[in-house]
Amino acid sequence: LRILIVGFGNVGQSLAKLLIRKRGEMKKGKIPEIKVVGILDSKTQVIESEGVNIASALKRKEINGQVGIERRSDFNEILDSSDPDVVVELTRTNPVDGEPGFTHIKEALIARKDVVTANKGPIALGFHALRELASRNSVQLRFSGTVGAGTPILEFGKICATGDEILSLRAILNSTSNYILTMMERNNLNLEEALALSKERGYAEADSRMDISGKDTALKLVIVVNYLLGKRITLDEIYVKGIENIDNSSIRNAIGKKKRIRLVASSGKRYEVKPTELDVSDPLCVYGPMSAIHLRCRFSGDKYLVGPGAGGTETAIAVLRDILYLKGR
Amino acid sequence: LRILIVGFGNVGQSLAKLLIRKRGEMKKGKIPEIKVVGILDSKTQVIESEGVNIASALKRKEINGQVGIERRSDFNEILDSSDPDVVVELTRTNPVDGEPGFTHIKEALIARKDVVTANKGPIALGFHALRELASRNSVQLRFSGTVGAGTPILEFGKICATGDEILSLRAILNSTSNYILTMMERNNLNLEEALALSKERGYAEADSRMDISGKDTALKLVIVVNYLLGKRITLDEIYVKGIENIDNSSIRNAIGKKKRIRLVASSGKRYEVKPTELDVSDPLCVYGPMSAIHLRCRFSGDKYLVGPGAGGTETAIAVLRDILYLKGR
Repeated sequence: LRILIVGFGNVGQSLAKLLIRKRGEMKKGKIPEIKVVGILDSKTQVIESEGVNIASALKRKEINGQVGIERRSDFNEILDSSDPDVVVELTRTNPVDGEPGFTHIKEALIARKDVVTANKGPIALGFHALRELASRNSVQLRFSGTVGAGTPILEFGKICATGDEILSLRAILNSTSNYILTMMERNNLNLEEALALSKERGYAEADSRMDISGKDTALKLVIVVNYLLGKRITLDEIYVKGIENIDNSSIRNAIGKKKRIRLVASSGKRYEVKPTELDVSDPLCVYGPMSAIHLRCRFSGDKYLVGPGAGGTETAIAVLRDILYLKGR
Repeated sequence: LRILIVGFGNVGQSLAKLLIRKRGEMKKGKIPEIKVVGILDSKTQVIESEGVNIASALKRKEINGQVGIERRSDFNEILDSSDPDVVVELTRTNPVDGEPGFTHIKEALIARKDVVTANKGPIALGFHALRELASRNSVQLRFSGTVGAGTPILEFGKICATGDEILSLRAILNSTSNYILTMMERNNLNLEEALALSKERGYAEADSRMDISGKDTALKLVIVVNYLLGKRITLDEIYVKGIENIDNSSIRNAIGKKKRIRLVASSGKRYEVKPTELDVSDPLCVYGPMSAIHLRCRFSGDKYLVGPGAGGTETAIAVLRDILYLKGR
């Protein structure tokens, strides 16, 4: 299986390291052989049809800040010359127009390459267009890593929907804000202090406004609703309120009622993202940098999935899983 | 898709009712057409190659206690004459030798029929033998409903294991004992009173010793460990202690420490099922008739799935899902 990695930030580098650790399993035939035929970052490229030396690429990125020594050429030319089976799109989420990920994915699908991505922008903004493009070109588009990092929220939901029907859902989709709220509770911090702590720990995005404002959660809710509930909603149909105005007195007030404030995304009368008081006995009430989803199913009742919601390695696992599932088809 | 239903107790009848409710979706092509070509109970049969009248079969079972008016003929003859694509084995779990389910499944696989079952006995006792038999005959054996009723514990675990590795697991696999322990906590009942209540609610098995003794949990742990951890363990390798000796003072004692006693199945130094004090903040600490599993994964961390762990309709959903997944291959 030949893969082209597009975008070499935290998740891309984590995937590269993971592939090195998986060599033993590949050699033993436990998982299919995955060969990296190219890696691109924003300015440079390294293309090697016989397989890029991953360790050297990681080293170059670490030392020079760039993965290649060649400047990037035209994306279609790269697709042509590297001839991958799968394009793995891991550039940074752009919530405005999804670029450059959207164009990468679109051109890869048109060139009849399977695509795996962890990039929320293009999937949230162009969900149906990209899925239809994949279908028309008889290739697959997988995006497990866009929601829940390594916690398989989308696959889990799809299983629950099979033969049954998801009536409604509630979810915690931004683990950074969940960590911030937890720290405010536990250590009596204000929002700024908890945010600083989350940056120190590496949880917050470079631009933490995406986390705090609820925008990151809303992007993920669009993906979840379109994929699991079979709807066609867009970002502007979601009512979004972030955690900017949560102060420690509202946190204390909730605790006094055996509740916790969490940034909850939900489907119901309307699609919304907003700070919500959850009972401590509610399985959705999770602590620290976690994601969680609650699905209410017509026939099989209420189900909950909880797991880590962030992290380069965790997201890389979702990407690897998607690549392996492609192979299974 | 032609299915033969073998065993027409709670789950079999729930599946029949579910298929009636799904007719609209089948007609609209949302799910594949599923035609029941035969139903067997322990003494009688109804075989109809053009499709059994499900409503009449349910009615007969309700009125006569038997699904058919014909006495059951030889199982191989039935396979031959009804010519199903899928044999759905739903006879009652026999923890001693897995019969009659084991023979039904074995003969169906030899006759090159796909098999879907919710019967724990044959899968716990003959896991590898039956899987190998299916593989040799190029047919599929699916058994989602054996663990967690409609909560997809096995599928979820398989997803988490893909590309990653499950290092260890803990689980609550018998929702009846979880209900009993919850009632003892909440209503200050002793074991006998809580058991009586669980029978009243229809949660306990006809032979509730399976629930109380931990035997039912152990059967499920064998399935989980063999399927998700790729081991080859048998029932006698599991240390099993039930909840027979839990009294209300130990329940109160745990509550005083902000803990709850739960019947936990786990893999670790050894495979075991035993009453365990869980911290109330542990996501595995669930209340009422629920199942839950905690998977610790090498790369992607700790994940938890929680959902209803019993019920005819819930289990029928797992069976239907398995049937639909067969079709997908």
